[in-house]
Amino acid sequence: MKKEATANLNNSDSGKDDYISRSKQLLNKYKVKIGDSVKLISNKGDYTGIIMPRYESFNDNYVVIKLNSGYNIGISIDNIINITSEKLSETSVNVSLNPVKTDEPHNGKFVLTKGINHDIKKPLLSSSLPKILLLTTGGTIASKIDYRTGGVTSILNASDLYSIFPEISNYASIYPEFLFNEYSENLYASHWSLLSERISYAVLHEQFDGIIVSHGTDTIHYTSSAMSFALQNLSIPVVLVGSQRSSDRPSSDAFTNLLGAIKFITKTNYAGIFVCMHHTSSDETIACHIGTRVRKNHTSKRNALQSLDHFPFALIYDSDIVCNTDLKRINTRNNISKNLISKTSFDDRVFLLKFYPGFDPSFLECFSNFKYRVIILEGTGLGHVNKNCFPYLEKLIDSGIVIFMTSQCIYGRVQMTVYDTGRDLLDLGVIPLSDMSSETAIVKAMWALSNSSNKKELVEIMRTDLSNELSNTSPLIS
Amino acid sequence: MKKEATANLNNSDSGKDDYISRSKQLLNKYKVKIGDSVKLISNKGDYTGIIMPRYESFNDNYVVIKLNSGYNIGISIDNIINITSEKLSETSVNVSLNPVKTDEPHNGKFVLTKGINHDIKKPLLSSSLPKILLLTTGGTIASKIDYRTGGVTSILNASDLYSIFPEISNYASIYPEFLFNEYSENLYASHWSLLSERISYAVLHEQFDGIIVSHGTDTIHYTSSAMSFALQNLSIPVVLVGSQRSSDRPSSDAFTNLLGAIKFITKTNYAGIFVCMHHTSSDETIACHIGTRVRKNHTSKRNALQSLDHFPFALIYDSDIVCNTDLKRINTRNNISKNLISKTSFDDRVFLLKFYPGFDPSFLECFSNFKYRVIILEGTGLGHVNKNCFPYLEKLIDSGIVIFMTSQCIYGRVQMTVYDTGRDLLDLGVIPLSDMSSETAIVKAMWALSNSSNKKELVEIMRTDLSNELSNTSPLIS
Repeated sequence: MKKEATANLNNSDSGKDDYISRSKQLLNKYKVKIGDSVKLISNKGDYTGIIMPRYESFNDNYVVIKLNSGYNIGISIDNIINITSEKLSETSVNVSLNPVKTDEPHNGKFVLTKGINHDIKKPLLSSSLPKILLLTTGGTIASKIDYRTGGVTSILNASDLYSIFPEISNYASIYPEFLFNEYSENLYASHWSLLSERISYAVLHEQFDGIIVSHGTDTIHYTSSAMSFALQNLSIPVVLVGSQRSSDRPSSDAFTNLLGAIKFITKTNYAGIFVCMHHTSSDETIACHIGTRVRKNHTSKRNALQSLDHFPFALIYDSDIVCNTDLKRINTRNNISKNLISKTSFDDRVFLLKFYPGFDPSFLECFSNFKYRVIILEGTGLGHVNKNCFPYLEKLIDSGIVIFMTSQCIYGRVQMTVYDTGRDLLDLGVIPLSDMSSETAIVKAMWALSNSSNKKELVEIMRTDLSNELSNTSPLIS
Repeated sequence: MKKEATANLNNSDSGKDDYISRSKQLLNKYKVKIGDSVKLISNKGDYTGIIMPRYESFNDNYVVIKLNSGYNIGISIDNIINITSEKLSETSVNVSLNPVKTDEPHNGKFVLTKGINHDIKKPLLSSSLPKILLLTTGGTIASKIDYRTGGVTSILNASDLYSIFPEISNYASIYPEFLFNEYSENLYASHWSLLSERISYAVLHEQFDGIIVSHGTDTIHYTSSAMSFALQNLSIPVVLVGSQRSSDRPSSDAFTNLLGAIKFITKTNYAGIFVCMHHTSSDETIACHIGTRVRKNHTSKRNALQSLDHFPFALIYDSDIVCNTDLKRINTRNNISKNLISKTSFDDRVFLLKFYPGFDPSFLECFSNFKYRVIILEGTGLGHVNKNCFPYLEKLIDSGIVIFMTSQCIYGRVQMTVYDTGRDLLDLGVIPLSDMSSETAIVKAMWALSNSSNKKELVEIMRTDLSNELSNTSPLIS
């Protein structure tokens, strides 16, 4: 079997990665191609690095090389004397762990790619600036294009990331730290425990003004929910940051999202768990979402994450931050880190079951044979499933499994008193979760299961708003 | 156990259903309450009917009575002489099967509720008007409030519906027909077969200009997908219509949605499967969605249904219809009904599995013990699941189960060539479904399973755009 590979993240990028006409002819002439490690000799100097794909910001008169510093540099075809292929080594791809070199030419002769800072002479760490712990956990923000396959792989570590974005040193002293390196679809509750324990330690024993967690976007909203329950009464902001384009692509949103998080930490006074990503497809506005009220709604757009209340908690502009303080119960920052409630364990005996027409109710019988203690039923509309499920649900509830209802509608709230289907389900003991998203509900259930000793406690935790995950709950039948 | 019941469909309605101050005092005085069947004696005449809840359109000077004709009538408190409770009988609640009576007073003395036509003297059926078959299947549009519990029950039939909305007779000759009466969460593939067979018969043997199907909104998008595959090359438009407020509520959207569908049928030239619902929360614009590209995204708002491409196929204004003909491959109407492709069988051995972090891969083993032939895997982001699922997925695929990938993101498309997780899944034989929604995918898989004789055919059907469900597909590994 042969792998089909492409670096395109969406259709609109189609064809933009390939060199065409003049530049392509040049590459063919020297028998080199995208992804090759090369030595390039030009009228203006010699450069060693990797031939990068062409992006929308380049015209056809340049060849783009990624230097060892992490910079991309565009060299005019007219100035190129020779290109020779060098043996590709993994180390030549990785950027330096040290501060980026300042001796790379980057004057008007070169096209420096979008998002890379030209001024790299400032100190990387300055004691007078706010101090931010940067934990990396993997994902696109810590990924780069594999120029041999054209796909994206997860290989950068925290220090690499910092080297690529030297501009962040203008705003804060950043302390990068590698925590783990996983695509976010591979995370388990144990990763949430590890991350929340590290944050808890930092809050209690280290003196940071804020913490940034770089994270894959696929499940960033699940992790932000997990942190929101595991770490309550935070004295500082903890901001998860993802990106939809890998950090080494000129079109990457990693830098702007990171910078948005840094601005939110250094220029506002809020504490708690947040997520920063693009608000629109342009770089101009970064949205800061509340950890429990955000969802990945688009597979590829930069503004893939959306607040479940349609509008984020804060919008971060170039020099301004506008917060929706009326809408949410959010704590302000304080020095009383000892108030932190840190309960970092999760119990993953929870199943998320999305209902659909044609679902065979007898499938529910299989849960008697599994370890699950909680089922999150993602129903239709206001919280409904086929009436033929009722006897099976009743049996599961009788056996001690706790069943909560959310809606596959995404927006709005479960209300099971409106239709007789809902009232019958309430009668059976199915418990509605109001406007909690299915994604947050599954995470909260794993946390609640680990932090309760009986069903009554579990239900009480699930139906109490702890971190803005619920705006209210309708009464239960009792 | 005691039932908690409320007629509120969302928070913004809160409190609006209750009589306050003057009118409440009056009801208390006569010892009657909302939902009571009463005889009301006033200066202007005597009325028998049911006391209705108050809605936003009423001030506090009226008591609202639902008459046997289906009309709501507001009677000024100043004119009321006496109210006596009558024994509640089910028949008194049901509206007449005959054309509505014209002898009910509806002059300036009364407040007629929004959406009810004052002009009821026109003929209900006129041979000069376009002919529309109105099939009812249940759901809110055919529901009414149970004034004893405050909840909504599903009891109106097609003729009732027609009696409530006499205004539709201005636009078309409507032939109402009761097909079945189920909340849409209770529908199975067998209901889709029944509905598509009835439509097929009408297209081939009856001379309608269009067909309207009244349907519950919970799964209206699943049914519209089912009709889109079961009935291809339609010569006329078939429009599914739902409502979020029951038809007998003055705030109901049933009438405006129905009228929108009638306008679309009578004033445009398109054929195929569509869904008509509010475009915004106001009554001014009705959206007409393509059957395979629509989703219920809000639990309670009138504009709960949204097109997956963010913009509907057509917007229906008061006297104007604007169509996005550039965006979609939609057939125009024609007289060649014999070109209809009618394949009305579905095979429900398909399971929809929504992935989440913490999902236990070993759960996949249970599918070996079930009847399922297809699994729709609703992955994260571009189409990913935890890498620890891979060996289990491989085993299922080896056993002959076909596994397709969709995304829980709702918007965008599955692209499994971008990250190594996706490429590994492709290697295993998991098949991406591009921008097909999970909801449409599960329906199409049930249809494709019934209309193919082997895996190759099944996969080819799934990856071929039949009814705008796919805008393109990325290459498979082979």
